[in-house]
Amino acid sequence: MLHYTPPSQDLAFILNDVLDANAVLSALPRYNGVSTDVLLQIADEAGRFAAEQVLPLNHAADQSGCTWENGKVQTPPGFKQAYAKYCELGWPSMCADEADGGQALPRLVFSITNEILSAASHAFVMYAAIHHCASACLRHSATESLQRRWLPLLATGEVTSSMCMTEPHAGSDIGLLTTRAEPTPDGSYLISGQKIFASGGDHDLTENIAHLVLARIAGAPSGSRGLSLFLVPKILDDGQPNPIFCDGIEHKMGLHGSATCSLRFESARGWLVGEPNKGLAAMFPMMNEARLLSGLQALGISDLAFQNALAYAQDRRQGRAANKGQPAPIIHHPDVQRMLLTQKAFIEGGRTFVHWVALLIDQADWATDAQTRQDTTDLVGLLTPIIKGFLTENAQTCTYNALQVFGGHGFIAETGIEQLVRDVRVTTIYEGTTSIQAHDLLTRKVLADDGRRLGLLLDNIRDWATSQATEHACFIEAALNTAAKLEAATQLLATRYSEDTELTLQASVAYLRLAGHSVLAYVWARNAVAAAQAPAASLWHKAKIETARFYVEQLLPEVDQLMAAIQAPARPWADALAA
Amino acid sequence: MLHYTPPSQDLAFILNDVLDANAVLSALPRYNGVSTDVLLQIADEAGRFAAEQVLPLNHAADQSGCTWENGKVQTPPGFKQAYAKYCELGWPSMCADEADGGQALPRLVFSITNEILSAASHAFVMYAAIHHCASACLRHSATESLQRRWLPLLATGEVTSSMCMTEPHAGSDIGLLTTRAEPTPDGSYLISGQKIFASGGDHDLTENIAHLVLARIAGAPSGSRGLSLFLVPKILDDGQPNPIFCDGIEHKMGLHGSATCSLRFESARGWLVGEPNKGLAAMFPMMNEARLLSGLQALGISDLAFQNALAYAQDRRQGRAANKGQPAPIIHHPDVQRMLLTQKAFIEGGRTFVHWVALLIDQADWATDAQTRQDTTDLVGLLTPIIKGFLTENAQTCTYNALQVFGGHGFIAETGIEQLVRDVRVTTIYEGTTSIQAHDLLTRKVLADDGRRLGLLLDNIRDWATSQATEHACFIEAALNTAAKLEAATQLLATRYSEDTELTLQASVAYLRLAGHSVLAYVWARNAVAAAQAPAASLWHKAKIETARFYVEQLLPEVDQLMAAIQAPARPWADALAA
Repeated sequence: MLHYTPPSQDLAFILNDVLDANAVLSALPRYNGVSTDVLLQIADEAGRFAAEQVLPLNHAADQSGCTWENGKVQTPPGFKQAYAKYCELGWPSMCADEADGGQALPRLVFSITNEILSAASHAFVMYAAIHHCASACLRHSATESLQRRWLPLLATGEVTSSMCMTEPHAGSDIGLLTTRAEPTPDGSYLISGQKIFASGGDHDLTENIAHLVLARIAGAPSGSRGLSLFLVPKILDDGQPNPIFCDGIEHKMGLHGSATCSLRFESARGWLVGEPNKGLAAMFPMMNEARLLSGLQALGISDLAFQNALAYAQDRRQGRAANKGQPAPIIHHPDVQRMLLTQKAFIEGGRTFVHWVALLIDQADWATDAQTRQDTTDLVGLLTPIIKGFLTENAQTCTYNALQVFGGHGFIAETGIEQLVRDVRVTTIYEGTTSIQAHDLLTRKVLADDGRRLGLLLDNIRDWATSQATEHACFIEAALNTAAKLEAATQLLATRYSEDTELTLQASVAYLRLAGHSVLAYVWARNAVAAAQAPAASLWHKAKIETARFYVEQLLPEVDQLMAAIQAPARPWADALAA
Repeated sequence: MLHYTPPSQDLAFILNDVLDANAVLSALPRYNGVSTDVLLQIADEAGRFAAEQVLPLNHAADQSGCTWENGKVQTPPGFKQAYAKYCELGWPSMCADEADGGQALPRLVFSITNEILSAASHAFVMYAAIHHCASACLRHSATESLQRRWLPLLATGEVTSSMCMTEPHAGSDIGLLTTRAEPTPDGSYLISGQKIFASGGDHDLTENIAHLVLARIAGAPSGSRGLSLFLVPKILDDGQPNPIFCDGIEHKMGLHGSATCSLRFESARGWLVGEPNKGLAAMFPMMNEARLLSGLQALGISDLAFQNALAYAQDRRQGRAANKGQPAPIIHHPDVQRMLLTQKAFIEGGRTFVHWVALLIDQADWATDAQTRQDTTDLVGLLTPIIKGFLTENAQTCTYNALQVFGGHGFIAETGIEQLVRDVRVTTIYEGTTSIQAHDLLTRKVLADDGRRLGLLLDNIRDWATSQATEHACFIEAALNTAAKLEAATQLLATRYSEDTELTLQASVAYLRLAGHSVLAYVWARNAVAAAQAPAASLWHKAKIETARFYVEQLLPEVDQLMAAIQAPARPWADALAA
């Protein structure tokens, strides 16, 4: 079985030494008195729960998967008990408001604990983190009475949720959705239509599920501007089942423990969330949380894979170090080190990135001055597609390398690594593919406001860089150089966009990766500087600095390739696919 | 079900217009009268057989896998019948000598037909192509009597083979093998030991299997210099079973239709192949063929994935072209085009690469002058690890992109694409991982002879380039520039190697990819020039040129990243993994 050790030391380092989270949180009255010590204690508890109660279920969950019989879904063995324990320990209520029975803890604590839970079981997190995403949606747009009805149930975990968007003919293009909503005299609606790919659309963990369903009110415009959002419970207040039928679950490449459901709504009763025809706007807080969660999943799964690959490399003896002596652990081979360090650099950089953004969300929600709230909101909006599109792709590389370190044994199911490769594969697809993230980043987040949001990121990098001493200048320079390339690429694409919108999108994914490296170069510089300044410099801190160096020298040069690809003229690619 | 169309037009173009295979073959007396017309007809027949008899079995083979019961392996439904038909049609005998009942056709025909068969079913090819690899081994090293006994049976397909190297504690490091061989008075040996990961180590396709087993004769030196190679048949000449026991088959990430066996030899009778303690040298012709075959598998699987992703992109309607009108097929989206063209560029470039090397093998074996034989032998030796290490990694990118084009549907098992991702994953591991290929390339093939072999490649590129007109100079320049970078990287690493062998290996995989791009830039230049010179220029030829442009502008810039990684100073990476 795979083993997992929560990254306590790295989390403490990132929160305290890199991000100075105490200073940030103490400026937010809501979190007065919440220190990183508390957050790290919670992370330790999450780590114990994850390693002891959840991780042991994960491989079996892959083998057995979910089962579907007579319209009902059963989750894998042990999930029900683990979920009950999860609720009993109060995990779903962490970030909920006190009025809803929550603990009103910072968003940051959701981030660090869900990195850890994702490492233990991607499938389990699919059920266990959805409360958080659904609550964000309801808090943002639902009526007061809907909020009072459902937020407390989500906080206790008594109810889960599922996002019902995709239909067979409508995936990335949700403007094509045809599910209908008929108004009724009491103000509720009757929802009819078929949804697919609904994660946790049915299961046996809770009695009730609060589906959040995009549908079109009779007479609404076509396209995405005619969509409305509805909360459609599996069980109605009178205890009767709503006419929602689970017609089956998908057989997937991975993530077998998460039920991916086909749902049929047959005049199921639902309540409007947000305004009519503003369903997309109402759903977006949930979607954004889900996108950020994908980044946490990518990070957690990568760390699980890395920890096991590292241990294997320290244990497995093949070949000699420097061609002499007894067989040496394969970690002595430079190319094995390269594969491991690629993982370490992406993971530790990604960890800093996602938890930094979690802290920005806390500021966006609770900063006392409006400008800070606006700026951090905008920055989070810019960084969300980068987290989703960059970290989930990096996780493919990380798990790929982890499997490769295991060699032939990595290809064998019982080793457990190949499951992680299959599970994490979906993270670049669901909640919007990498293409969709790149499109969102380039057109909506960067070009649409003439680079104002991007300016916030660049200012952040440059302000930090100029405040630093000249020690470890190589890391600071790398961050500044990459930021400059991002700025140059932005100007080039802005010009091109004004000439040809469509062809500009040829560069969108390369641009997203360039933006990702800009952030990673920045957070790695902050890590390196913090490690160098650590009061008690240790081997651990030295390893941090050397990992930063590996990142800058071996991985960051991807930006050279990206810049070349972006700077190449737009071409008629369709011609190359003709005939 | 996935569909597959053999790449007839591209094969004809590559053989005739790019490689001028008729001129090469006509210079080899053995192949007097064998024209590309004949080879392409055979490819068409292989395509029919593959698409009609083999492809329909491939998805079910993944679902059911092989079964193991009471020490016996059953292959997936239909494999037995398809294999019988395969033998009946004479496929195993294509390249065998006439004296052995073969058709004495060029190595090139094995290459093109096994690209096609691999597309239809990677698992089937594991059984069906092993004759070719085993025959190469026996022809090279076995005694005349062993050859006469076994080569005809391999040519009819009546017997298959399996390569028995790996043991639980000895994977990449075969010097650790402990399987023993005791000489007997009649000159045969009794083999005892346990082997794992033996593909086709047991199955129900043939009565007999000629295992090729690395073992250590009593008293032999330790390490790889004490290994000898033995042919150990499953059934002895008297019809009695040799004491070889299949203790189980592996449950793997993919390639479920290929039985990966644990074999226990208990004083099984075997015959020496090659000289005592020269087992590695004796096995290498088989291993080299298996490595080249991995490249063909990578190519075929990638093409199957690409063809289906392309068709899906032409059919699936999501979003608008240029943001207006009715939903358009997703192939109109630039990023979908990017994902498809990445596949097309790697596939068509890889196709030219592998079949060029097949033609070089024909020259190495049958050229009339010794210098040509020596040079082409050396060139093939240089290019083999590049094919294995570069094309199999590119195949991961290709199948990854194919799945991504399918979006959420790609993650669903019944779509069929995810199987290809799982199947092809092993190609970067078996027959020597990418690390092993990179080590072989850099130390044994390049640095060991002071760049003589590499010089042959560079001369080949430069001689061709200088013979061209200045039309399409951009492609020729790209090839020359990449060759120059490869040369510079070689010089840098040669210097570093003389200072520190071990640290130089940090750059080995980057160097292998740089070498791979050097070849791909070269063959794409040849493709582009040939397409431009085609007498009847068509949309197809225009697409070829535009694909070359995509390769040069979008994929080839990976060399910028590689050069930066190679030029970075050697670092104490182990420190970054400490603590």
